[in-house]
Formats: sequence, C-alpha cells, structure tokens
Amino acid sequence: MKEKVLAVLKQKGGYVSGQELSAGLGVSRTAVWKAVNSLKEAGYGIESVRNRGYRLISSPDVLLSDEIKSQLSTKWFGNKILYFDTIDSTNNEIKRQAEKGAPCGTLAIAEFQSAGRGRRGRNWQSPSGSGIWMSFLIKPDISPDKAPMVTLVAAMACAFAIREELGLDAMIKWPNDIVIGGKKTIGILTEMSAEMDTVNYIVIGIGINVNMTEFPEELRRTATSLALECGHQVARSRLVAACGKYFEKYYEIFLRDKSLKNLKKTYESALVNKGADVSVITADGTFNRKALGINDMGELMVEDETGRVETVRAGEVSVRGIYGYV
Amino acid sequence: MKEKVLAVLKQKGGYVSGQELSAGLGVSRTAVWKAVNSLKEAGYGIESVRNRGYRLISSPDVLLSDEIKSQLSTKWFGNKILYFDTIDSTNNEIKRQAEKGAPCGTLAIAEFQSAGRGRRGRNWQSPSGSGIWMSFLIKPDISPDKAPMVTLVAAMACAFAIREELGLDAMIKWPNDIVIGGKKTIGILTEMSAEMDTVNYIVIGIGINVNMTEFPEELRRTATSLALECGHQVARSRLVAACGKYFEKYYEIFLRDKSLKNLKKTYESALVNKGADVSVITADGTFNRKALGINDMGELMVEDETGRVETVRAGEVSVRGIYGYV
Repeated sequence: MKEKVLAVLKQKGGYVSGQELSAGLGVSRTAVWKAVNSLKEAGYGIESVRNRGYRLISSPDVLLSDEIKSQLSTKWFGNKILYFDTIDSTNNEIKRQAEKGAPCGTLAIAEFQSAGRGRRGRNWQSPSGSGIWMSFLIKPDISPDKAPMVTLVAAMACAFAIREELGLDAMIKWPNDIVIGGKKTIGILTEMSAEMDTVNYIVIGIGINVNMTEFPEELRRTATSLALECGHQVARSRLVAACGKYFEKYYEIFLRDKSLKNLKKTYESALVNKGADVSVITADGTFNRKALGINDMGELMVEDETGRVETVRAGEVSVRGIYGYV
Repeated sequence: MKEKVLAVLKQKGGYVSGQELSAGLGVSRTAVWKAVNSLKEAGYGIESVRNRGYRLISSPDVLLSDEIKSQLSTKWFGNKILYFDTIDSTNNEIKRQAEKGAPCGTLAIAEFQSAGRGRRGRNWQSPSGSGIWMSFLIKPDISPDKAPMVTLVAAMACAFAIREELGLDAMIKWPNDIVIGGKKTIGILTEMSAEMDTVNYIVIGIGINVNMTEFPEELRRTATSLALECGHQVARSRLVAACGKYFEKYYEIFLRDKSLKNLKKTYESALVNKGADVSVITADGTFNRKALGINDMGELMVEDETGRVETVRAGEVSVRGIYGYV
C-alpha cells in the first residue's frame, strides 16, 4: 500500500486528495492515512493540507525496494527486489537466488558489500550509503560465447541512463567501464553459469560511484563519482530505475539477432576509445594501436601503423590510453 | 585406519600378517584387528589364518569414499570425496561445494540422484545401486570459449578407462557420449561458472550405466550397460579410479597448450563418427555430411558431397548416424 501511495504521489506531482487516493487505490481513507504516516517515518517529506490533500516534497535517498519499485517503469527488471543493508556481494546473492530458481529480472541491491569483487577477483570498494551496488539476473537462450556481448549491453544502459538523468558526458571504456572526464565511475562484473553449449543464467553486477565526495589517495587520479562530476547529491533509486529501463531496451534489441549489429552505432557513439590511440596489453607484450570501433560481436577493432586491422576480445587483453587510464 | 589397512591388503594381494600391518602402519595390533572387523562389517570378505595373517577375498560393490580412496592412484582427482545415498544431483552438489571454496579434484558420488539431469535440463535416469553418478571439480585457468574442450577430455578418459578395465570396445560419439555396440553407456554433463573472460570453475558430471540389466522399453534400442556388454557385474569403485587416472593424464596434456592438439589422434582413435555419414541437425534444417574428425578446438569437421569442409561446434548442432543413434 505504502508503495502504491508513493507511486501516485510521485506520478501526480502536486496535491492529491485523500479521497482521490482512497478511490483510486480501492482502499479506505484510514488505510491511505496509515500509508502516508509510514512513508513519513521512512524519511519522505509529505505535506498534508486540509481540503487539498497530500503532496510529496522530498524523498530520502534510500534504496529500499519500495522506493525503487515506485520509480520503475520496466517490464521485468526488478520484478523481484532484494534489499540488504550489508551483504557479501550482490553477485553472490543473485547466484544463490538463481540456483533456487529466481526469475529473470530479480534484483539484489545493498548499501554495503563486505566482499565486493571486480573482474578476476580484484577487490572492489563498496562504501556504505554512497554507491549503487546491485546485481540482477537474466536468462538469455544463447551459447556461452555470446555472453560477453551482454556486458557491453549493460555498459550502454548505464552510460545512457546517466546521460539522461544527469546530463553528464558518460563514456564507455571498452568493453564495459563507464568513465566521466576520463575517470572511472562504474564497474561491471558479469558472471555466468553455463553448460558447454547453452547459458543457464547470467548475473550482471553493476557498481556505481554515486555520492562519495572523497576517494583514497591511490584512486584519486583514476576514479570519480557522479556527485563530484555534477556538483550535487544524486537520488540513487531514480538511477537504478533508469539503468533498468535502458538495459531492457538495448537487451531486447540484442536478443533479436543475438548480436550487437543494431546497437553498434549507439555503443560507439559513447565509446571513449573510438579513434583513440590505445595500448593493447597481451600476454606477449604491449602494442600501440588505434582503436576503430567494435564489430557485431563486441570485439574491439584496432589498427596498427601499417593499416592492418585486428580484432581484440575482452579479457584477452587490457586496453589503456597511451597517456593515461583511457 | 580402515582405509589404510584395506589399501595394504589390496596392494599385497596375498596374506599379510598382523605384525606386518601394525609395523607398516605404525599402529597397535589391536587397532589393526579393529580395522579388519570394521571392514568385514562393511561387506569385505577377509580371511584370517593363524600364523599367516589376513587376506582380502572379496570387496563389496560399494562406492563409499574409503573404498574409492583405496583404489585411487591419482594426484588430485578425489582428494576430497563426498558420498551420498541420495542427492538431488551430484553436479548441483559440486557447484555448492565450489561456491564454498572446495579444492580442484573434489568428487561427489551418489547411489541415487533424485534430480539427475542431462544436457539442456533433459531428464537423466539414475537408478540406485547400479550406476556411477559422479561429478568432480576442476579450476582451469582458461577462457570460457575453451571450456567445451574439457568435456571431450572427459569423454576420452571414460572411453579409455573402460577399455583398460573391461576390455570393451568403448567408442566416443562426438562430442562426449560413450557408446558400446552403438548404444549409449555414458553421458557427460559439463557445467561452468565463468566471468566473461575467465572460467571460475568447471563441474564435470559423469553418469555411467554399470550394472543395470534392464532398461525401460523406450531406451532399449539406444542404451546399454557395462554389465550387459561384458556379461558380468562390474566393480564400480575400480572404474571410478580408472576414470580419474585417465582424466588426470589427458587433462594435463590439454592444459599445456589449452588445446586438443596433442590429444586429437587419441580422441579420434575412439571416435565412432570418424569417417561415418552423419546427420547434422541445425536450427535451419538437417544435412547429411561425412564426419572427418576433430580439429584442435574439438570441433567436428564435416564434408559435404562436393568436398567442402565445415567445422561444427558442440551444442550448435546434434549429430546422429544416418541409420540410427550413431
């Protein structure tokens, strides 16, 4: 009920009478009054004016599932939301949920991760209250070799969600980091469970530096937060919803032909490496190349000084800018 | 202690005096006597003759970890053995173990699986007491696209273990079924957990029809058991040990260059499809081809009537014999 009242107040924007709320939701005036009180207790600023009704003035920056649900305009993303104050890692939680048969779209979100991970088990700092640490479950009917493309789809979704919500110039560092002003803002860790020929499920973990205003010395040159870049605190639940909306949009296009054919142009429009000189770091050494863009499989196409073009697969190599992080 | 006494009795073959056992194992005569009694209780036939000692006459066909351990001559396969009377599926158990950090080589084996699975979630019958239903854990440092090769390595190991143990003409139906006389005897279900660019772990599930003498009507034409083929009951624990030994051997060769380059010839020597006409069943239709063999990646090379050669990846297609199952 709380969540339904919240959704109506948000949707209408201005005053909504108790009468209208109770009729619209098919419940008693008392039930509405109780829901409003419980929202106030959760930190929402709700004005009550005699003869005019209720008006939502402010939302707390909470990630509770009610708050996220009231923002969502998705078909399946977040159909089940699991909120945690503290958890080992949201990716682990979604894996556990998947093994128990949770549906596609199940979302785990936590204020703090005690064992947050980056790629290949690297440590990932997930300080409490200032980030979005979330993972969600998808079950595409694809072969495992197509799974890396999903991580590029997730990167696109995050970049365009941030552009829409905050007007920031979010760029993708191939394959799936999001950078703003050359500094990392979002990391994505995609994991899958698969048979040899078919994916059982994929967990997409997204870590967004949202409201932190300080970084440890060793990260200051390469990391930033949305708040630092846009100059104000950011409502996290709106951003979660926007990421979900864009993910659904691009993922649907991906699923049609299980390729990035029809997403390539959009991806490249946000690709910070496009046309840039990059260092391709392989097991055999580091080579300087010019990044041209991606192919239909999401591999990076790079050109050497003689004009010879090669493709580079995510994970086989690291790509760095010649003069810095991007 | 039980297991150490058993190992010595098996190794020596003939009579072993209590004195020799207690000295060799560094324990009291009483401890030896207790271990022998407990082995007898578990179904082992052990003869005790005054002044000569103990002699192992017969072993029960049990899969208890002690029995398997006494047979193993492996480096890491089965370093941890989990035995279950009944379990949902040994693959699921090894996945749970892996998430808890179990070491490479951890083996789960069950007398009965209540939710045994074949590929793509197909039902797999695992009747109690007459089969080997086992799964084990490996953690190769490879990218996910190389994982399908491991399933071919497992198939080779099973085929050559059966050849050595039972002298049966076990053949591989590409990619990883084992057939004897054209009928399926072993199914393998390989599953992995992976990041986009690196495998976290692989679970290899092996189901062997060992001692069943009857199959349901609908399977009679396509399935058989080792007992039916060799005309006598088969000791399962020896076979588990033999599969482990061969797996370690071939897997080590695979890991050297993460390819099947140096295993291809051996694999093909047991490949029932080699040189045979096969139906290649794809999403677009069914085509008759001649199977030539495998390439270094384990893909099947097939030739059409014009001599054009294509490669076929596991999972993309099913391969059937023109005239039947193989």
